[in-house]
Amino acid sequence: MNTIGDIFRVTTFGESHGVAVGGVIDGCPSGVQIDKQLIASDLARRATGTTSSASQRREADEVEFFSGLLDGVTLGTPIAFIIRNTDAHPEDYQALKDHFRPSHADYTYQAKYGIRDWRGGGRASARTTAPVVVAGAIAKQLLDQHGIRAQAQVKSIGGETDPEKIETLLQQCRAVGDSVGGIVHGSITGIPAGLGEPMFDKFQACLAKAMFSIPAVKGFEYGDGFAMAAMKGSEANDEMKVEDNRTVKFLSNHSGGIQGGITNGEEVFFNVAFKPIPTIGKGNRHDVCALPRAAVVVEAMAALTTIDLILRNH
Amino acid sequence: MNTIGDIFRVTTFGESHGVAVGGVIDGCPSGVQIDKQLIASDLARRATGTTSSASQRREADEVEFFSGLLDGVTLGTPIAFIIRNTDAHPEDYQALKDHFRPSHADYTYQAKYGIRDWRGGGRASARTTAPVVVAGAIAKQLLDQHGIRAQAQVKSIGGETDPEKIETLLQQCRAVGDSVGGIVHGSITGIPAGLGEPMFDKFQACLAKAMFSIPAVKGFEYGDGFAMAAMKGSEANDEMKVEDNRTVKFLSNHSGGIQGGITNGEEVFFNVAFKPIPTIGKGNRHDVCALPRAAVVVEAMAALTTIDLILRNH
Amino acid sequence: MNTIGDIFRVTTFGESHGVAVGGVIDGCPSGVQIDKQLIASDLARRATGTTSSASQRREADEVEFFSGLLDGVTLGTPIAFIIRNTDAHPEDYQALKDHFRPSHADYTYQAKYGIRDWRGGGRASARTTAPVVVAGAIAKQLLDQHGIRAQAQVKSIGGETDPEKIETLLQQCRAVGDSVGGIVHGSITGIPAGLGEPMFDKFQACLAKAMFSIPAVKGFEYGDGFAMAAMKGSEANDEMKVEDNRTVKFLSNHSGGIQGGITNGEEVFFNVAFKPIPTIGKGNRHDVCALPRAAVVVEAMAALTTIDLILRNH
Amino acid sequence: MNTIGDIFRVTTFGESHGVAVGGVIDGCPSGVQIDKQLIASDLARRATGTTSSASQRREADEVEFFSGLLDGVTLGTPIAFIIRNTDAHPEDYQALKDHFRPSHADYTYQAKYGIRDWRGGGRASARTTAPVVVAGAIAKQLLDQHGIRAQAQVKSIGGETDPEKIETLLQQCRAVGDSVGGIVHGSITGIPAGLGEPMFDKFQACLAKAMFSIPAVKGFEYGDGFAMAAMKGSEANDEMKVEDNRTVKFLSNHSGGIQGGITNGEEVFFNVAFKPIPTIGKGNRHDVCALPRAAVVVEAMAALTTIDLILRNH
Repeated sequence: MNTIGDIFRVTTFGESHGVAVGGVIDGCPSGVQIDKQLIASDLARRATGTTSSASQRREADEVEFFSGLLDGVTLGTPIAFIIRNTDAHPEDYQALKDHFRPSHADYTYQAKYGIRDWRGGGRASARTTAPVVVAGAIAKQLLDQHGIRAQAQVKSIGGETDPEKIETLLQQCRAVGDSVGGIVHGSITGIPAGLGEPMFDKFQACLAKAMFSIPAVKGFEYGDGFAMAAMKGSEANDEMKVEDNRTVKFLSNHSGGIQGGITNGEEVFFNVAFKPIPTIGKGNRHDVCALPRAAVVVEAMAALTTIDLILRNH
Repeated sequence: MNTIGDIFRVTTFGESHGVAVGGVIDGCPSGVQIDKQLIASDLARRATGTTSSASQRREADEVEFFSGLLDGVTLGTPIAFIIRNTDAHPEDYQALKDHFRPSHADYTYQAKYGIRDWRGGGRASARTTAPVVVAGAIAKQLLDQHGIRAQAQVKSIGGETDPEKIETLLQQCRAVGDSVGGIVHGSITGIPAGLGEPMFDKFQACLAKAMFSIPAVKGFEYGDGFAMAAMKGSEANDEMKVEDNRTVKFLSNHSGGIQGGITNGEEVFFNVAFKPIPTIGKGNRHDVCALPRAAVVVEAMAALTTIDLILRNH
Repeated sequence: MNTIGDIFRVTTFGESHGVAVGGVIDGCPSGVQIDKQLIASDLARRATGTTSSASQRREADEVEFFSGLLDGVTLGTPIAFIIRNTDAHPEDYQALKDHFRPSHADYTYQAKYGIRDWRGGGRASARTTAPVVVAGAIAKQLLDQHGIRAQAQVKSIGGETDPEKIETLLQQCRAVGDSVGGIVHGSITGIPAGLGEPMFDKFQACLAKAMFSIPAVKGFEYGDGFAMAAMKGSEANDEMKVEDNRTVKFLSNHSGGIQGGITNGEEVFFNVAFKPIPTIGKGNRHDVCALPRAAVVVEAMAALTTIDLILRNH
Repeated sequence: MNTIGDIFRVTTFGESHGVAVGGVIDGCPSGVQIDKQLIASDLARRATGTTSSASQRREADEVEFFSGLLDGVTLGTPIAFIIRNTDAHPEDYQALKDHFRPSHADYTYQAKYGIRDWRGGGRASARTTAPVVVAGAIAKQLLDQHGIRAQAQVKSIGGETDPEKIETLLQQCRAVGDSVGGIVHGSITGIPAGLGEPMFDKFQACLAKAMFSIPAVKGFEYGDGFAMAAMKGSEANDEMKVEDNRTVKFLSNHSGGIQGGITNGEEVFFNVAFKPIPTIGKGNRHDVCALPRAAVVVEAMAALTTIDLILRNH
């Protein structure tokens, strides 16, 4: 339930206002030197976002590792870590003990478990993405050895793609205490052909599952996505040439690098739609927009999916 | 790899032009009378579609059950079944032995496995959805006992939503040997609050994974989906009233019945985007459009996801 | 539940007096030529046993393959197969409909499922080991490519190890309608160092789980096993020499080829204890002793465990 | 790999001389008040053992919880915890960096991973059973609510069952720097009929896998175990009476409470054989005998197996 991946398995834990959030990575190959600076810089991307959209919660986000590393090199055994919740103010949430906030998970957690950690979002908080970013930063270092790169950036916010218009929109939202949604565009480059497991662990199926695990995600498409629903086959097909009787060269990439659930060696690209943050109203200590911070989470999820499917492909 | 579900587990097998396609359902509760007519009628929906879009492959699609049933009642043991490929003409595909069709899985299967069943789409063929429909029809009978109903129908084809325009479009495509994509709209009604497993098996994550397992699916969104990326929080939030100090009533359903990955008791609804069928050109024995036939597959996948998450929720 | 293995996954199905028993092998590597004669000869070992202990049920045990093979070569897709129950006489069991036989699973299945297939042992019958033998025979062919051999033979029956005494004992049992237990000795030779996954998927843990899946198994030990409980460390340790500064040579093998849950390159050997068949009384159409037939099942389980842990070790 | 259980899932981590050992429990039901004193007292049983056999390593074994609890009540979310390695003297092991100790996992870990934590046993150390004991103590509190009790105690050491003889034997071993093996007897009482999942997750199969996950275990038997291999069916069968046309009463329990892989409501009992501790020689900071300390680990594993199969049985 709180584990993702089949061979490179990441289990996360932690409530937003408990002692800590953290994770365990099982199945990480041995002998890999981990650069902790790269982890810290990804965590910083998640923590800060841009000036005008950022939450006012400020966490040190220092990662404590407990196991799985010897002098920074992976042992092949589980890598466990935590990030302490140092800026948690559970007392701020006292009023929420008997109140369900709209479009939050307060009610659904209560319905499912008959109990919930009412101090902030608990397990449903976006704070739970911090351990995902740590695991993703490690996955990215493994992918780097294969020449693969997972990347993500904001594509649009509130329907706007122009940075200046986005900035204006975010300031307007902050002024009135409103929030706004957006789209993150992701890509995986340098990926070899042959990744993805038919029938039910197709590359796109695993990627979609990972993306819909991120709080606030409402839509996912890859390749030309929803636009393909209005296309003809003659417009959508990716012709290819077989060169030197061996190498395949694609002349287009409407497919987004995946056919029949298996990568074809072209760039995998996709869009992830986020709803607006449900916490609104002036004076709330929350983001105007999840997106700048969410991009690194999308990147982490893409990296985790890819390394797992690489390890499964033998 | 070829298994979906955690407790209600469906494993499928079979190549499009091999002896048979089939499946094994493990974890089906005991003591349930199965109506085989309902299975047959769902298979008929998958086989036929509408007149103008339908494939010319005609299969009897008779289901042979091997186990798990005693006088039509489930034993709690695995239910295994096959559907024979009686109309398979592997010799038609002789020319494909050394040829990769564009936007098919021919190349990617070859890249992954170093071998492929070149007789038609093999394991990547839409024929492999027949066992999914059988399992889905059984899942729907279980859901019926819980008062839950999973449904799906064509929303648009080639961007058109009007039936007459769709019919005209399909005829045009058939005339020139082209194909066209579309969108299926699905819903799950009567669903209780509390289904879905945080963190990585959120209801929508499991549903998305199931949908992206269907051949030709390029996009998935639930609730207001991609449209929410352009919304403000003040527009997107679902206010609720707590009645009688106990019952929660939602005033809107932008969320699509899921919050924090857990159902809230409202209708779950979603859209699934299909690319055009890649096989084009006159004289090909294939569909103009996958959609009319795909709706029952979407329905089956929604039912399988729901029953599994019901059984996991205890 | 009815699946064993993590990458090389075998799902079995079928009741003893239903239409068929069978299985699906998922995760079998592609490109391997399967010799169906080897499968048939292992099935014959399971079906026959020795003259004096054998059941009087006579099945053709012909394997029908549905998928996963092209001209006898594995495609990397699921291999599904059945063996029809041609000699099933469900009417013989009419009397058992309302009766629980002692030390059978009749009562426990009824307690668990509220229903059972009372025609013979249903899912708990030893007939369900036939698909395991098929999968094991395929696994052995894969192991053969790695130079690994899984073998098993009867070590003792009723406490006797001498063939002549065993024969006498079996005849005595048959004469009075009694049955008798025994021990099967198994070994895996040619196995490399490094197989087995700590912490909970140790080589011996996976092997034990597989062996205790066989009906009637009551005990499992590996290496010097239970005898080690009475040993001193000075007697039980396996000294080793490092040769050429690289190669490790062990001077003894009390450990049975496994240390810390991981193979060390020495022979893995083990014993499996079977209770007497619970069906006794003159005129019953059942074995006097499960063992001669059980050896090939032990062998199959050892092969399945080994190939799965090879594929997991990367 | 480092996870056990299907619904009540325990993942452990940590090297013997790293920062900490710990675990994550996922799938624990919500709303259960956890008594931390019971956890501490089980940890004390694991840490101390009896006077004459105990290791000289002394750990505070204080459990730090990070998540999953609110005021000591389970939230249904993952429960993560660590126990710091406060008495770790990695420098003592400097000499082991380039040396493989006989019958330890030094060589096999090196062979598998190409790297190992040479500071003590690393991941293969018995120290890794501490998190298992914590999880087991929580499982026992859940079982208590069902009226089920898992227990284990030393049955024999070095073949002796008399406490005085055992004490003498242990003193002799300590004097010469030797070690000795033994047998732990376990039982599960109050267990209902119907637990265990055919075909491959039989109650005994899951129990055996759990027991063979414990370091130094070489054998497992349940019910009359290996002795049944020398029995006749007429001696081994458990007759039963059906009382009041409903209640089943067993007249004996050779089966050890399990038939066809499913519990029958009688006591489940079993033996677990441990080899002698491989570290021998005077002056070594290690146990003479693992057994007194191992009993609580056996108990924990039995509790974890039982609660998981209870949660799977619906």
